[in-house]
Formats: sequence, structure tokens, C-alpha cells
Amino acid sequence: MSEPGAAGPSPAAIQVSRIMRPDDANIAGNVHGGTILKMIEEAGAIISTRHCNSQAGEPCVAALARVERTDFLSPVCIGEVANVSAEITYTSRHSVEVQVNVMSENILTGAKKVTNKATLWYVPLSLKNVNKVVEVPPIQYARKEQEDEGKKRYEEQKLDRLETKQRNGDVILPVINPDRQTKEPHTVGYSQSSLIHLVGPSDCTLLGFVHGGVTMKLMDEVAGIVAARHCKTNIVTASVDAINFHEKIKKGCVITVSGRMTFTSNKSMEIEVFVDADPFVDEPRERYRAVSAFFTYVSLSKEGKPLPVPQLLTETEDEKRRFEEGKGRYLQTKAKRQAQMQQQAAQQ
Amino acid sequence: MSEPGAAGPSPAAIQVSRIMRPDDANIAGNVHGGTILKMIEEAGAIISTRHCNSQAGEPCVAALARVERTDFLSPVCIGEVANVSAEITYTSRHSVEVQVNVMSENILTGAKKVTNKATLWYVPLSLKNVNKVVEVPPIQYARKEQEDEGKKRYEEQKLDRLETKQRNGDVILPVINPDRQTKEPHTVGYSQSSLIHLVGPSDCTLLGFVHGGVTMKLMDEVAGIVAARHCKTNIVTASVDAINFHEKIKKGCVITVSGRMTFTSNKSMEIEVFVDADPFVDEPRERYRAVSAFFTYVSLSKEGKPLPVPQLLTETEDEKRRFEEGKGRYLQTKAKRQAQMQQQAAQQ
Amino acid sequence: MSEPGAAGPSPAAIQVSRIMRPDDANIAGNVHGGTILKMIEEAGAIISTRHCNSQAGEPCVAALARVERTDFLSPVCIGEVANVSAEITYTSRHSVEVQVNVMSENILTGAKKVTNKATLWYVPLSLKNVNKVVEVPPIQYARKEQEDEGKKRYEEQKLDRLETKQRNGDVILPVINPDRQTKEPHTVGYSQSSLIHLVGPSDCTLLGFVHGGVTMKLMDEVAGIVAARHCKTNIVTASVDAINFHEKIKKGCVITVSGRMTFTSNKSMEIEVFVDADPFVDEPRERYRAVSAFFTYVSLSKEGKPLPVPQLLTETEDEKRRFEEGKGRYLQTKAKRQAQMQQQAAQQ
Repeated sequence: MSEPGAAGPSPAAIQVSRIMRPDDANIAGNVHGGTILKMIEEAGAIISTRHCNSQAGEPCVAALARVERTDFLSPVCIGEVANVSAEITYTSRHSVEVQVNVMSENILTGAKKVTNKATLWYVPLSLKNVNKVVEVPPIQYARKEQEDEGKKRYEEQKLDRLETKQRNGDVILPVINPDRQTKEPHTVGYSQSSLIHLVGPSDCTLLGFVHGGVTMKLMDEVAGIVAARHCKTNIVTASVDAINFHEKIKKGCVITVSGRMTFTSNKSMEIEVFVDADPFVDEPRERYRAVSAFFTYVSLSKEGKPLPVPQLLTETEDEKRRFEEGKGRYLQTKAKRQAQMQQQAAQQ
Repeated sequence: MSEPGAAGPSPAAIQVSRIMRPDDANIAGNVHGGTILKMIEEAGAIISTRHCNSQAGEPCVAALARVERTDFLSPVCIGEVANVSAEITYTSRHSVEVQVNVMSENILTGAKKVTNKATLWYVPLSLKNVNKVVEVPPIQYARKEQEDEGKKRYEEQKLDRLETKQRNGDVILPVINPDRQTKEPHTVGYSQSSLIHLVGPSDCTLLGFVHGGVTMKLMDEVAGIVAARHCKTNIVTASVDAINFHEKIKKGCVITVSGRMTFTSNKSMEIEVFVDADPFVDEPRERYRAVSAFFTYVSLSKEGKPLPVPQLLTETEDEKRRFEEGKGRYLQTKAKRQAQMQQQAAQQ
Repeated sequence: MSEPGAAGPSPAAIQVSRIMRPDDANIAGNVHGGTILKMIEEAGAIISTRHCNSQAGEPCVAALARVERTDFLSPVCIGEVANVSAEITYTSRHSVEVQVNVMSENILTGAKKVTNKATLWYVPLSLKNVNKVVEVPPIQYARKEQEDEGKKRYEEQKLDRLETKQRNGDVILPVINPDRQTKEPHTVGYSQSSLIHLVGPSDCTLLGFVHGGVTMKLMDEVAGIVAARHCKTNIVTASVDAINFHEKIKKGCVITVSGRMTFTSNKSMEIEVFVDADPFVDEPRERYRAVSAFFTYVSLSKEGKPLPVPQLLTETEDEKRRFEEGKGRYLQTKAKRQAQMQQQAAQQ
């Protein structure tokens, strides 16, 4: 079904289909990227938990450790069916790589489109001792190269996870003068937003920790509000940079999800999102940074064409620095995409 | 309020009313049959649990054992109020029969329509030992015939439950080559669909088992996707055959709900739905078939008139056999309905 | 079922029952006051919309204008059934008074407790022209005094609505130094919280405006987080002061719900909550204050006994002023309750 492919007994693919409902979408009828991310993660959690328990061993629950960068290739609409298929493509001693493909299907016309592809890494935690990572049963590969390529992907993401752990000290300062918000459109402070959410039982896995997909959905919600406040048009998620889940979030926590715009190109906006957890009842622990990520949004006309985006007005030194960093990421992604396209053209 | 009627102290009727929201409906604004089935089951679970605990005895929770065939007589729309009323109409030593009536009400025009009537059977399970069925306090009947008629219904459903237990070995094989799906419309493989759902705490009763209504709603969701994929128009649930809940499904299970079309008449489609449970963590048990049922859908024009349905193309021997069996059920139902109408005409 | 009572044709009572789920409750298993407020408002919206359309006239939808102060008399738990019954007790030319009673029922033991009683005022808005208030068909009263008492209640709430319209200019300033949050527990800034919510289709009535119950649920959510952050124990809603809904909130708006603690007594906390609406897409309108209210919370031990509450540390002049105002409301309520109890004792 998907390229990497693997031929073992347990890593059989799973498929999930769901009709997109009005609440899954914005008022223009475009399904939130967060809805798709949540479906992707649920499929990943099921297949990796199933695999990790497939051999007699310590019962365990797979916890999301990382999602690789994913691009949303075409918007999904209310009434369409999102078909999510997941399969295990690599296993290391303590982690599982899941490849997920999402197709949107207009069941009235039969038209199908690739919505996005995503790669997720899970780590199995013991059901009895949540701080213990158990061993993953190895999958079998159809060809030796599949294992080698998987190992390469594994090493790369491991490195990247270490790096991002540093960046996590940053904090989104609330706007000091709230009147500013109504006065200067297109500044960072004008659109920055945050929400709090009390983690309920349905947000959590069997271990009592928040599903990675629930967190990603809230992050997309905040990022989408930042983007809409900035450009006051219909906006959709274009891509999400790799997200690392360094710290677990427990049931009963209050999480604060904050977003601020970091960069705008002619037709896209980059929003940085932080998730902070606040274990407020019965726990001595202080508030801590659980996740952070960059979301990219585009603005769409009523006909679904990309619209120009107002340029972000940076005021402070920090804002200017972050804008330049965002520009760096933007140009790097652009270069990578062009290289891929040239490679593909050369292969044909 | 309903015909069978019973005059005891505890089986006081219960009523539930709710405004239908956009998420309860398809894009044409017709409320999903599954939404109604879920409301029906919740009312039934409340009234039967209340009754079974009405006398000093072992605390227990009523678990859904069976829903009799129900016809959806008229579609409900967003903004209308669904009024669900339930009462207990018969009790055997270990089971409770609940009669539920659903009326849709347009609160703007005052128009009321019968949506459907359903009969549900519950079995009380001990709160302390979930494998123990406790005794049901008898209700009092206004007339002796009510008890006799109830007993007859009880015996009939008991027989039927035994029979369907056999059929449960069947499995829906996932489509091997997913490209086939785009190639041959109107085949069984073209429209077959499945979803997976991780059973969360809010899906469950106090005993930690999935509410029957939650399962039925998911079954209707899959059946609706199969029907829409087949005929590519607005579809609505016309009826659900009797459903038996042979096996409980525990919190933390993954359930796979799969549907395939078995039969088409000129204006209706029959879809068989299977629910398989997968207790993947902490339980040695293998995947097992928890429920199966037949849903019938019709296709509606924008004016709400029934449309012709494309005939199902059967390819394998099994598909042909199932088509014939579906035809048998269709003709049997048709004959039964005609007999009822003649009887009613004769009585007037 | 309720005291005021009225005997007309259309104001038949409506009843709604629902089993309380884990998602309706906090981690200690106590159902959120907001869940109950949402159920209450839904019942009120159904019965008043039904009544206002009961005579041939312009089709209309009842919009919540005001909820009178309500006390939560006993906490509801997961697995219990909340029985909500509503009836119309007074009609003026342009408004409807609905009396709602909520009983919690333990269906295992049969124990029933009054959870709370609430009085809601609705105004019917034309379906064609949302700015037009249509006329309400009069109800018939069993006794003349019922009409007179209703009129008195009507005049009182009208006065009160005018008064609170003034207070709405206030704004919750975000904490200027975010580090303070970890440093000075029990200050106003330490516990203040806010959330944003994108108004989706399922939050709205047929007119496309947010259900009052949805707003109240979000307000209770924020107030509960403020209370829990302050005292770091299990908290429950004890009462809600009268809430006036001055301004409608449209589908597609982003609403910001902010809460700050204003007053603490030995065993209770008062939290002020503001709802601001931000019509960010396609609308020239500025952010506006839609609703504000005072919620009172108590802290409960594991045995359900009220715990002492840490005193609120006020720092600024404004905080001290608000504390004194809160104290005034607290003493007034206490005096009123004592007077009622004496009156009841005298009547017996």
C-alpha cells in the first residue's frame, strides 16, 4: 500500500475511514489540519500498541515520541471521507516507525486525492511502570535495503530530537498593553493567542497521558486562530514541521497552548506554538514545556486559490531575529522541494 | 403512551429530548440513523438499570442484549427536536424489555412525526461480578394479555438470538489491491469500508463496557459510507435488522467496524456490518466478533424522494450467495409488511 | 413538579435525562456545573421556542437573555442520571420565563437529590430578521396570583439587566511578568486564566448564534481552572450569579473567555468571568464584550466535605476594591439565605 513496505506477521496495515462533519471544519468548509493530525495519530497509536504487544512480554502502551514534517497537499471538505491507512515500516529496539497515508474521497463523485503522508515514531511504555520503555518485537523486511533505509531515518530523527530539546526554554510573553491589540494590525502581538484546556479522560491513553493527536489538534486550533487574526480571511494548514514530544502530559493537568506568528512570505505564514503543562492538583511539579512546533498556513480565496498575505510587522529585536530564522526555514524547505522535483524529473 | 403499556410503580416512563445539531446529520441535513439509535439506547439503559435496582438487591447495570428490527419512518432534520420516550413493557426472570418511541418535532411549525419505534432487551449484570446476571424485579401488568404477549415476544427473541450466534464466524477481508477500488464501481469491494475506534471512558457504562448505543452509532456510520460510496447520492438509514450483542466490549479495546454491501433492490441497499474487538493490551484474549447486523439504506433526491439504486455487481460465489440471502430477507420483510397492512385494513 | 405552575395549552413541561459520563466531570468524579448549565439551557431553548411558535405567527427562535442566580445544592457524580425538567411559568409581551429543575438520580440505589433550580428568560427572534423580536403568545395561569408574581419577577430582572449593562467596560489585563505566576501563589494574577474557542456549527442555534448553554459551559470551565489553580484541590461550582446575555455571538467568531478571582471567604471563592467576541473574518466589527458573570466555587476533601480556602492576596487598588465588592455580594447572599430559612421555619 505504501512504498517502504514490510512483510511481517503483526505489522498488518490498518485503515480508518470517517466522514468529515461540520465541527471538523472551519466556516468555509475546509477541514482543520488538526482533525487530520488527530486521526493520523490515533491510527498510529493503535497499530504500534498492537505490534508491541504482539509477542508474549510486558503489556505496554505506545506513546508518541515524534511526528516528521508533513505537508497538507489538498484541503478536505465537509462530507468527504478521510481514509487513513497506517503500517509499521521500521522498528528499533525501543521505537516503532509508522507510515500513515491520508486520502480524501468525495463519495459523490468518487474523486480521490492524497491529503498528506506522515511518519510517526512511537515508544512503548510499560503498563505497570510508566517510566520503563519495553522492548519492541522486530518486524521482518521484504528486502534488506528497507531495513537499512529505516535505520538511517531512525538515526536522523534521533539527532534532531536531541537538538530541539535545547530550544524549549522560550516563552510567549502576553501582550503588555491590551489596547495595542486593537490598534496595530499585522504586528506579532496583534494576532498572538492562547487557550487553556483541562485534560479529561477521553483525551488520554490507557496510561492516563494525553494522546499526541489531541495535543496536535489543540496546537492547530491556536495556530489557525493566530493566522486568521493576522489575515482575516479563510486560512488552511499547509504544513507542520517535525514535532517532538519530550514530556508526557497527565490527566487532570491544565495545558496552555500559545501561538505567535514568526514569519510571513508572500503567500504563507509561519506560526510557532508552545504547549505548557500545569499539574495543578495534588502534584508538587512546576509548569513545564511539553511540546513546541512550527505550523505553516496559507490564505485561500472563496475559489480555493492562495491569496497574498499581509507582511508581519516586527517590532522588537527578538521578533526580528525570529523572522530571520523563519525565513531560513522557509528558504531551506523551498530548496529541498525543488531538489526533490528535479530528482523526480530526472528519474522519469 | 405506547400500546403494550404496563402499570407498575418503578417502570415509570422516561423522556429524553434533544435538538439535532449539524454533527448529528449528513451534508443534506438528514440526521444519521445512528444518532437516533444512540439516543434510544441511552434511554433504554437508564430505565432498565433504574428498574433492576428498584428493589433491595444486588446493585447491577443493565447491559444491552438485543435490539429488535426497527424501521426509520421519516427522516429527522437539523434543528428539529428528537423526543425519545421509553417504558418497560415486559420482564422475564433475567431480562427487561423496553419499548422506545421516537417523535421528531419541528418546534417552529409544531409538526410532529413518528420517526421510529424500537424494542430493546437488557440483561442486568452485577456491579461486583460482571459475569453474574442478577434477578429482575417483576413489573405489574394492567391486563393479563400484556404479560402473555410479552412472554411470547420473549420466547421469540430468545430463539432468534441462538440462531444468529452461528453466523458470526464470517470475516470481511480487506481489499487486497486498493487500486481496484477506483476501477469497478458497484462491486462489493468498491464500496466496502472499515473504521477503527479506541474505546474511551465516555463510551462505557459504569461496568466499563461499551454502551450498545455507541456501537450502533459506529455501525451506522460505516454502513452509511458503504451506501454513499455505492450510489454517490444522499442516503438515509431506512431500517436496521435485529441486532444481538453476544459479547461485551471492554474499555481500552480497539474495535474494527467493517461494512460490505450484500444486496440491492430497485430502491434499497442492504449492508452487513461486523464489529470485531481486539483487547490488545494486558489481555491474552484473541480478536473476537462482538456484534453483527444488517442495515438497509435508501437513496434520496434533493426533494426527499427515493431514487433508483445501481445494482450490486457480485463477482465471487460468496457474494452471489449473500446476495440471494439478502434477497430472501428483503422479500420476507416485504411480505410481512403487506400482511400487516392488510390486517390493519381489515380491522378498520 | 415546580411551584409557580401554569395551566395553558402549549407550555407543557419537557424532560431531559442523561447519564453523566467521565467527560462531564473533573478527575474527582464530580460533574462540572457547566455540564448542568448546558443541559438546563437546552431544555429552556426547546420549550420556549416551541411555545413562541405555537400560534400562527412569524417563525422564531428563542434566544437566551438572562439566567437568574442558581445554587448547586449537591454535587452530581459520574454514572448518575441528571433529570432536567422545564416548564414555562410566565410570559410578557416579548419574553418567556422558564423554570428548570434538576434532580440527580443514582439509578443503582434509587436515591434522588435536588441538584439545582434555575430560572431563564428567553426572547423570541424572527427567523427571517434576527434583529426583530416577535410577540410571545400569552400562557394561561391557574391562579391570578401566579400572573402577578410572574410580572413582579419580570420587572425585577428588567431593572437588573439595565444595571449590569454598565459594568461591562472592564477588561482582564494579562499578567505582565509571567515569572510572577510561579512566585506568588494566592495572588489574583497567579490564578487568572483565559481560553479561546472558535465557534463551530454545533455550538449554534438555527439562527447561527451561540447557544447560551455553550457559553455558560465555557465560562464554568475557565472559572473552575482559576479556582483549582488558586487552591490546588478538588473544586466544584457552588453557585452562579445572574448572567445577562447582552450581545449575540455569531458562528465563526473567536471567543475569549477570561476569569480572575475577586473574593475569598473562609470556604468559598468568587471568580469573575468575561466573554469577549472577536468577529475576525469578513466583518468590520471590533471585539466586544458579550457576557460577564460571577461564579462561586468551594473546595472539597476526598470525603466531599468543604475545605478551608487560602485567602486571596490583593495587590492593586482595583483588586482591593473588587475584593470588597465581592465581600458585599457574599454577605448579601448570606443574609438573604438566612431570611429565607427563618421564613420557612416560621411557615412550618
